[in-house]
Amino acid sequence: MTPGADGPAPRRRGRPSRTAGATGPDARTRILEAARTEFARRGYDKTSVRGIAKEADVDAALVHHYFGTKDEVFAAAVEVSFEPTLVIPEILEGPPEDMGERLARYFIGVWENPVTRAPLLAIVRSALTHEAAAKALRGFVLRRLLERIAAGVDVPDPTLRAELAASHMIGIAILRYVIQAEPLASEDSEKIVAMVAPTLQRYLADR
Amino acid sequence: MTPGADGPAPRRRGRPSRTAGATGPDARTRILEAARTEFARRGYDKTSVRGIAKEADVDAALVHHYFGTKDEVFAAAVEVSFEPTLVIPEILEGPPEDMGERLARYFIGVWENPVTRAPLLAIVRSALTHEAAAKALRGFVLRRLLERIAAGVDVPDPTLRAELAASHMIGIAILRYVIQAEPLASEDSEKIVAMVAPTLQRYLADR
Repeated sequence: MTPGADGPAPRRRGRPSRTAGATGPDARTRILEAARTEFARRGYDKTSVRGIAKEADVDAALVHHYFGTKDEVFAAAVEVSFEPTLVIPEILEGPPEDMGERLARYFIGVWENPVTRAPLLAIVRSALTHEAAAKALRGFVLRRLLERIAAGVDVPDPTLRAELAASHMIGIAILRYVIQAEPLASEDSEKIVAMVAPTLQRYLADR
Repeated sequence: MTPGADGPAPRRRGRPSRTAGATGPDARTRILEAARTEFARRGYDKTSVRGIAKEADVDAALVHHYFGTKDEVFAAAVEVSFEPTLVIPEILEGPPEDMGERLARYFIGVWENPVTRAPLLAIVRSALTHEAAAKALRGFVLRRLLERIAAGVDVPDPTLRAELAASHMIGIAILRYVIQAEPLASEDSEKIVAMVAPTLQRYLADR
């Protein structure tokens, strides 16, 4: 929670390294990518601003400059991981009677794809074991995601219903991909979509 | 996974301590209670057979004697925490049209009660971060729980449906009690029961 909780930034040679592209938008993107990789690979505890800087080939001071503390880097990395959820408004805009199915297929698809699954798993694991990570998830990401869904549906208590739908998808992800409990772990993804779609439909489309 | 992974059991005075009630059914119960307390308090990583023995006021050799390795103590402690689920057959036996509501109220009740919530949270956290704990959960506990539910319902794919219902309750528990994401975290429990009941009803009672 406190700035620089992982120690003061080492100022190698007193300023950001002179590697080509070490500053500017490219460096920012590279830092975010490195943060995703590091959090996914090492978990929240063992990831440091220094390690992220090294992975991104920039000075740790630059990481602090762009994002601040480790918690803030985490929050930004989490947001990048959730960028696929930006397409949610399009999903909500299709025919209302298939909304549950589209949402279910979309979420299962994000989790089935190893590229998007790894950072999501890292986020869920971190949020469950570290209050700072939980705070980043509920404060920045989940609230924005739920508001985006809630704005696109026409039901009472839209945010609560969006969160109930999200809770179901999170629970499925945990049992299928983390705990790997059968029969869910081996079930065909389309069958899961078919069984879950009416639940999401009821939460988000049935008044 | 290997026996004695947390080091060989210290054999104080060459045999179990002479504390009154240090052996027999009482000691076994005390060890399980101590294991629950220790896993809930310290998490999976930092809990040791030695620490459990100390908390139970018995020799570590007795813990090994009754339960074997740390993983096996964990599995046994998890099973004790899930003992409330033994009442599930009764829940399933009531009027079929209210089954979803009875199950939802029961599960939310278990999580609302701080006494049962603490060990459950510890289990979920451990299972999400430690493969041995995940294995104990899916192998011993979840399978038995799902089979018990599946045996009491008359639908196609009963175990898969039981797991989908369980995934929803786990997801709600994580968002409400672990991440504490609003609005779910502050919502009245009876309102959640009312909104979730039709979902469980559809999974477990509607063919």
